[in-house]
Amino acid sequence: MGKPTLLYFSEEAHQAIELAALCNASAQLIERHVFPDGELKLQLPSQLPERVAIFHSLHHPNQKLIELLLAAPTARKMGARQLTLIAPYLAYMRQDMAFFPGEAVSQQIIGKLLASLFDALITVDPHLHRVSSLSQAVPVKNALVLSAATLMGDFAAKQRANPILMGPDEESLQWVVQAAARHHLDYAVAKKVRTGDREVEVTLPSMSVQGRPVILLDDIASSGHTLARTTELLLQAGAQTVDVIVTHALFMGSALELVKRAGVSEVWSTDCIDHPSNAISMLPAMAGAWNSLTEEL
Amino acid sequence: MGKPTLLYFSEEAHQAIELAALCNASAQLIERHVFPDGELKLQLPSQLPERVAIFHSLHHPNQKLIELLLAAPTARKMGARQLTLIAPYLAYMRQDMAFFPGEAVSQQIIGKLLASLFDALITVDPHLHRVSSLSQAVPVKNALVLSAATLMGDFAAKQRANPILMGPDEESLQWVVQAAARHHLDYAVAKKVRTGDREVEVTLPSMSVQGRPVILLDDIASSGHTLARTTELLLQAGAQTVDVIVTHALFMGSALELVKRAGVSEVWSTDCIDHPSNAISMLPAMAGAWNSLTEEL
Repeated sequence: MGKPTLLYFSEEAHQAIELAALCNASAQLIERHVFPDGELKLQLPSQLPERVAIFHSLHHPNQKLIELLLAAPTARKMGARQLTLIAPYLAYMRQDMAFFPGEAVSQQIIGKLLASLFDALITVDPHLHRVSSLSQAVPVKNALVLSAATLMGDFAAKQRANPILMGPDEESLQWVVQAAARHHLDYAVAKKVRTGDREVEVTLPSMSVQGRPVILLDDIASSGHTLARTTELLLQAGAQTVDVIVTHALFMGSALELVKRAGVSEVWSTDCIDHPSNAISMLPAMAGAWNSLTEEL
Repeated sequence: MGKPTLLYFSEEAHQAIELAALCNASAQLIERHVFPDGELKLQLPSQLPERVAIFHSLHHPNQKLIELLLAAPTARKMGARQLTLIAPYLAYMRQDMAFFPGEAVSQQIIGKLLASLFDALITVDPHLHRVSSLSQAVPVKNALVLSAATLMGDFAAKQRANPILMGPDEESLQWVVQAAARHHLDYAVAKKVRTGDREVEVTLPSMSVQGRPVILLDDIASSGHTLARTTELLLQAGAQTVDVIVTHALFMGSALELVKRAGVSEVWSTDCIDHPSNAISMLPAMAGAWNSLTEEL
């Protein structure tokens, strides 16, 4: 059988090496050369064991998808038989239907591509809307979805006394419930109407926040507009403090400053996307998921 | 049957609209939205005829390949039956084997991707080395390769009196011969040893260039180092003038300045890649190629 190998790209060395250690796997770099015209050249190890995973968190996904397209068949050629993608952040999961005829349904297309390359996929809180399971979106043999919700609840309960956990919209309810459960925390969700990439209207829930610490939970922090607007409303409504915990800390451009300026005390995130706010590690959960797969072989 | 449709992205509107006019096709924009996190959303026309082509020149290819991956199945869903890729510049054609075990053979992988998306491919002077035909690299039903060589020869003969056409390396010989043929121009090829992405050693051929105008022909101008170095040597050897004609004017970063500083008088290119040096249009040839395909349906 041999030790499994976790392949990674240089910018994710830190997480990948730690994850490999947790799995008793060997971590090996995929060397990447970018030619002056933007073409990629990848060099994988020349010998691989049967059980191989590629670690790649897919924010800013386009070049990374080409990297996976090039790496996956090469890994198989070098010996991989069970090939897993560990993508803590999975891209292109939002567009799951054509809202107007002629729109590319990117979830289905990218999902099919990934399923053609990998036998298994491990990811954390993918942003699925109208599909209920990841394997509908990415039809791989094994699709393992981890949730950061429980760990975020644990973390929240340690940071503030008797906080209210608040989700940004009704879709987040199930997830906020899960985060609140273990420590019996109060929770609620706001209402969000998106009027553009960077414009949102937020309505707070009816629950009183007067004098209470509120912790906003979100799966993705991107432009930061939703978090900033919700924070302003919560502080106006008398919240003692507002903190933020997100699974995927994209924080594009000046998003983090925007959130801080709105009055947020602390911003914490999981390490699904490498970011200074990382405070909660999903690596042990990912290690467990990969171990459960490799035992199947 | 209905008029065929040529789909294009905004940055290539000019060429696509002209090409469509030459084919009596309708040119229609693929609307592209880039989300803050780099994900793409594409909107195609909601109804398409049977014969559809997508125009996309694939320099800086990674995002563009994802665009094609999203657009092609959507075009089929909207009615396309014969789907052609018109890529005047085709990417990833250079790595056709693994020089070291574990290298991704990108030509084969990208070729297979494109063949899974399109029925036909029209391109100009792809940079193939060890494979003799494009359909080995991109196994589509119809792979049509156009060459700019003859048009470059015509253009050269008009610009300078009795010029010498010179190719950068021995691989270019067949192509330089073709450019020289119609006007019985003198020709020769240099020798090139590449020692890095941006470093080359050049040896001039034995033919005297004393007092003669020399026109360097190349398929791709990327860093400009080969052209610059060859120009210096030619001027030292007494060439009257040195001009450059290239098929694919990539000219990365300061490449064009580098070439000019080396003493090149004029830089001309075909319109395969949109560039200020464009002087020779490949659009009529591409129109002819697409017409020949659509007649087959």
